[in-house]
Amino acid sequence: MSWAMEIETPTYTDLVVIGAGPAGLMAACWAARYHVNVRILDDKPERVLTGHADGLTCRTLEIFDSFGIAHEVCSEASVDVQMRYWRPNGVGGLERFQSLISQKPGVSRFQQCLLSQGRIEELLERVCAEGGVLVERNMETLELGPIEEDESCKYPIEVKIRRKVNPGTPSEQEPAVDANDSIDDHGIKVIRCKYLIGADGAHSWTRRQLGIAATGASTDECWGVIDLVPLTNFPDIRQSCVISSLHGNIHVVPRERQLVRLYIQLESATPGERLDRSKITAEMLISTTKKILHPYTFEYASIDWFTVYQVGQRIADKFSAAERVFLVGDAVHTHSPKIGQGMNVSLQDAYNLSWKICSVIKGILKSSSLASYETERRPVAEELIDVDRETVSFYCSRGAIDRGGLQEFRNKHYRFLSGVAVDYSGSEMISPKHVSLPRFDDEPSTEACESLVEERFSHICLGQRLPSYRVVKHANAEPTSVGSLLSSNGRWKLLIFTGDLRVEAQAVRFNNVSKAISATSCSIRQRSALDMGCQASVDIFAIMACPRDSVPLLSLPEIYHPWNESTGWEYDTVYTDEPDVYGVCEDAYGRYGIDRTRGCLVLCRPDQHVAYCGELEHTAGLELFCSRIFMETRSECD
Amino acid sequence: MSWAMEIETPTYTDLVVIGAGPAGLMAACWAARYHVNVRILDDKPERVLTGHADGLTCRTLEIFDSFGIAHEVCSEASVDVQMRYWRPNGVGGLERFQSLISQKPGVSRFQQCLLSQGRIEELLERVCAEGGVLVERNMETLELGPIEEDESCKYPIEVKIRRKVNPGTPSEQEPAVDANDSIDDHGIKVIRCKYLIGADGAHSWTRRQLGIAATGASTDECWGVIDLVPLTNFPDIRQSCVISSLHGNIHVVPRERQLVRLYIQLESATPGERLDRSKITAEMLISTTKKILHPYTFEYASIDWFTVYQVGQRIADKFSAAERVFLVGDAVHTHSPKIGQGMNVSLQDAYNLSWKICSVIKGILKSSSLASYETERRPVAEELIDVDRETVSFYCSRGAIDRGGLQEFRNKHYRFLSGVAVDYSGSEMISPKHVSLPRFDDEPSTEACESLVEERFSHICLGQRLPSYRVVKHANAEPTSVGSLLSSNGRWKLLIFTGDLRVEAQAVRFNNVSKAISATSCSIRQRSALDMGCQASVDIFAIMACPRDSVPLLSLPEIYHPWNESTGWEYDTVYTDEPDVYGVCEDAYGRYGIDRTRGCLVLCRPDQHVAYCGELEHTAGLELFCSRIFMETRSECD
Ligand SMILES: Cc1cc2nc3c(=O)[nH]c(=O)nc-3n(C[C@H](O)[C@H](O)[C@H](O)COP(=O)(O)OP(=O)(O)OC[C@H]3O[C@@H](n4cnc5c(N)ncnc54)[C@H](O)[C@@H]3O)c2cc1C
Ligand SMILES: Cc1cc2nc3c(=O)[nH]c(=O)nc-3n(C[C@H](O)[C@H](O)[C@H](O)COP(=O)(O)OP(=O)(O)OC[C@H]3O[C@@H](n4cnc5c(N)ncnc54)[C@H](O)[C@@H]3O)c2cc1C
Repeated sequence: MSWAMEIETPTYTDLVVIGAGPAGLMAACWAARYHVNVRILDDKPERVLTGHADGLTCRTLEIFDSFGIAHEVCSEASVDVQMRYWRPNGVGGLERFQSLISQKPGVSRFQQCLLSQGRIEELLERVCAEGGVLVERNMETLELGPIEEDESCKYPIEVKIRRKVNPGTPSEQEPAVDANDSIDDHGIKVIRCKYLIGADGAHSWTRRQLGIAATGASTDECWGVIDLVPLTNFPDIRQSCVISSLHGNIHVVPRERQLVRLYIQLESATPGERLDRSKITAEMLISTTKKILHPYTFEYASIDWFTVYQVGQRIADKFSAAERVFLVGDAVHTHSPKIGQGMNVSLQDAYNLSWKICSVIKGILKSSSLASYETERRPVAEELIDVDRETVSFYCSRGAIDRGGLQEFRNKHYRFLSGVAVDYSGSEMISPKHVSLPRFDDEPSTEACESLVEERFSHICLGQRLPSYRVVKHANAEPTSVGSLLSSNGRWKLLIFTGDLRVEAQAVRFNNVSKAISATSCSIRQRSALDMGCQASVDIFAIMACPRDSVPLLSLPEIYHPWNESTGWEYDTVYTDEPDVYGVCEDAYGRYGIDRTRGCLVLCRPDQHVAYCGELEHTAGLELFCSRIFMETRSECD
Repeated sequence: MSWAMEIETPTYTDLVVIGAGPAGLMAACWAARYHVNVRILDDKPERVLTGHADGLTCRTLEIFDSFGIAHEVCSEASVDVQMRYWRPNGVGGLERFQSLISQKPGVSRFQQCLLSQGRIEELLERVCAEGGVLVERNMETLELGPIEEDESCKYPIEVKIRRKVNPGTPSEQEPAVDANDSIDDHGIKVIRCKYLIGADGAHSWTRRQLGIAATGASTDECWGVIDLVPLTNFPDIRQSCVISSLHGNIHVVPRERQLVRLYIQLESATPGERLDRSKITAEMLISTTKKILHPYTFEYASIDWFTVYQVGQRIADKFSAAERVFLVGDAVHTHSPKIGQGMNVSLQDAYNLSWKICSVIKGILKSSSLASYETERRPVAEELIDVDRETVSFYCSRGAIDRGGLQEFRNKHYRFLSGVAVDYSGSEMISPKHVSLPRFDDEPSTEACESLVEERFSHICLGQRLPSYRVVKHANAEPTSVGSLLSSNGRWKLLIFTGDLRVEAQAVRFNNVSKAISATSCSIRQRSALDMGCQASVDIFAIMACPRDSVPLLSLPEIYHPWNESTGWEYDTVYTDEPDVYGVCEDAYGRYGIDRTRGCLVLCRPDQHVAYCGELEHTAGLELFCSRIFMETRSECD
């Protein structure tokens, strides 16, 4: 190239993501949805093909659904409906002593399952590609410059990278994303960006460049992980189970293509010493397995992948630098893979962070909102580490597992591990409780509490993700999950639970709230499709508690069915909670804890967490909340 | 090419399919699954992109599921849950007078829906391609030679084709399937094959080459069909509805991408005369729509596609020639598109025929089985024509529609239109009733009859497709629909409903049937994975009526969990009907009408239709049925 000598001719981009594992890809998915300029770089030639993580919690599936890939994941995954526990039977054998369901009913409309990390990455990469975002592989990261503190500097971050000289062979054609980058004599490129996300895994280069330490310790517990096709007469080999024998512990996790994963406890290494992984072979894992499973026979047809690790838990001292460079996923917390949370929590870190960065880049949110990443995610990381530590020691204390202890242990951590109870209340990006005191924040009735389905988190809780129940689409009677309205399109969602509009007083209240929201000065209206068309940053939905025929859709104020020249009126915005023709409605009002006459209003963030809820009259509080976090509309960015 | 002069150097293939519409593609899907040598040719440069058919019955979705594409279809399709009816209100306007559910509950685990023919063809083409079968487009068919009657001739059919000289531009790269074909000076190729399927639509070239007439008549009713984005205040524009006004009738059918399809009744043409379609414009359809919908307003944003047709019903005099050349789909029956059956019945013709041809080619079935195509499908075609004729005249007789008449009319044809009640009993490919008289062929109890869910066809009926209920997979407690076991992999399915194996007498009966089936002389065993591995032509499943833990999977005879060196034991073959952890079991035994103690055995064909059912002792009858239709095992073909 003619300007190859001009070192330091940077390429400018809004966002750089280092690492294309689950966390980095999820960050890029958001960027694709927001149409933000992004570069996502990985130093490896290919995505993960075998092994690694596989457990998907129901919350992760809800997030996948919001990106349109849950039905594929669910149709390919191994189900995980029941967990079984085995222990010595006292006469030299093993006995099954308990079966527990893996996921309590009513927690989510998705069922936790297992699918290989490689396939998950492939699907996320497709979501990125559909938005024009392609992963650049074989990219070496060389240097992360100091972040410029000058407020007027639009691209305060500089990162030097180089395409690897002897790269591994990628299995697919590499995209020419970098065709226009300048390079110097040594092939080095300089990229300047507004924000950078370090999603580069447990040994994070980004974290080290920032000089951020990861605090924690290793234990001397060693575990092997192996994916194989087993040949055994052990009866529960095709379902999740834990075997605690006198010779150690095994977790069995079934996978796709007749594969089974075994987590195998190995003899402890010398206390305090790091395990020499290179000395452990697959055959050693197999022979330990044989001992643990005895008297059941155990052979295998083929081995797909294996690894060995020493359990350790670490958490980064800081999650970001200058609110410009952020760390997500394994880069910020590491732990044992035993509790199947690695991929989930990592994805969810990025799911929490990246929409905020994109919104700031797009001029929708104030940059102060970025502080909420650490406020919201550090407690999750800490709980993760705690639960992991407890779990490892619980299962490692041989013989400690008995019927009662097990149930108690699972009940204690169940809410956290399901992923749906994560609570961001207290964050600056969630309205403080005292602004609105909706009646449905009361404890649910005793009756409801006793029912398995009526978990406490089925109600609307500020800071938690909105649970999903089925309602009926006004326009065509289609059964629709409320969760499916909360797609990850980058927009906030204002749900107006209208109550029963046949009640005259309620119709008046509804008209008032509609007028308030329709006022040209209202910040919701200014961000809705009514004023912004497809540039909208808030979607508005109405969910009625009266039969669809009692109120024609087009008789509602236009804010609920905005007009578009090429597609006509919007019909996908109005729903009713009525027993429909198939009885598929689930009494959404009742389950959310909303009074069927009075209704309420709920504002969800782009990541489905409830930011605000209140009575229909509480639009002033809503306006106040919006003014704190949103930029003025039509503000110029760039 | 050097041998271009050697005219008549034919290419040999097992099966040729003329036409790559829904029927032709479905025929090719089977060929792909059976790994049969097939050529599928279409004279058009591209598949259908807009318009055409869109209604999918639940039976079609069951078939799609058996090829692995139902979840995609369902996630993309417009739902069709409710049908509404409008009539003049007596004061110059219109009134809605009835809402009926589109599909009765319990009929199928799939819900009828709407998706464009083009997308359906794309998905079927993908199923073909996954099996290595690629469509050859731009292929002109020139001549179908007389079928050789000499029994010793292996390829008795000759067809001359030519790649079009000035083909339209295909949107995708064309596959070079024909690279090895010889061509003569004029570019003509000669293909010789064992069987040929004419799936070339209403004006079938194949039918004309065979000299088979299509008998029937045109009526003088004219209808226009238009796909557009409507701008209207008519309330039911986003759901299926029928509007019978004083100015004519309209059917509204919502489609993907904000499109709506309107079927519009036009003023009758001169009696007896064919309509001059060229004279009718989209604007004329719009202005008729405006009149019919008055006083509602009607404009449109854009028009996607439109067509005009004169209603006529025809059926071919014969469905095949010499049981070598067969006609399917519109090639054999045409009718109005009003009842939304065109694509469904056409697909189902091919679904019925093609597995039989493939099985004969593969040496699995005797060639005499091919006669059953016409035995089984002609009655369906005839009923289709009748229902169509009745429907057209019902909706065209203005003012005839009232609440009672409508309900009665729909009830009359409901079973047929749902597609699940098609009954092939009486065919040579279904065991005659007197061979086995299982108790569950009795009328269901009155109680069951009165419940909406317990339709008569929920029981096991010889000749009908097996309905599907959820059971639990023994190996991992996974909720599983029995329907999902009946995948279109080309194999017959023997379901052993074992009954309750905790009852000793029943355990004895089960052991006896297992022994009979496991005997090396048993024709089921000879065709199962136990003897044939992946060459098997019968899959065996056990469905128990006792808890999974009462009988370990590997304690069942090996015929239920055959061993494979590379994948170990088969774990996906044993199920139980017990209330599982989530309560998802649906009392399959009860709904099928099977005694929970005694069980029964059921043989389904590769197309899911019940060919045989009987008491566990009735293996002799099963053997007799098999000997009538199956070739001797390991017979050489080719
Ligand atoms: C060997 C191994 C085995 C595992 N086994 C299990 C298991 O059995 N069960 C389980 O639940 N979890 C397991 N995990 C953990 C799980 O994979 C992680 O928790 C999860 O992948 C975290 O996602 P992430 O995106 O944060 O990091 P990662 O998935 O680690 O992704 C980081 C990405 O960044 C790239 N990268 C790293 N440094 C740079 C750089 N300097 N420049 C550019 N790119 C860079 C890497 O190539 C990688 O693609 C395992 C992880 C590993 C590494
Ligand atoms: C214009 C039109 C509009 C329709 N509208 C509706 C509707 O609104 N609603 C509805 O339910 N149904 C509609 N139908 C009917 C529906 O499309 C058919 O019932 C269904 O497609 C039948 O499938 P098939 O595969 O039997 O035939 P087709 O779909 O007609 O497929 C036949 C294929 O054979 C090819 N072919 C024809 N002759 C030759 C030859 N000599 N050599 C090679 N290839 C050949 C054609 O190119 C075509 O691809 C419509 C059909 C048409 C043609």
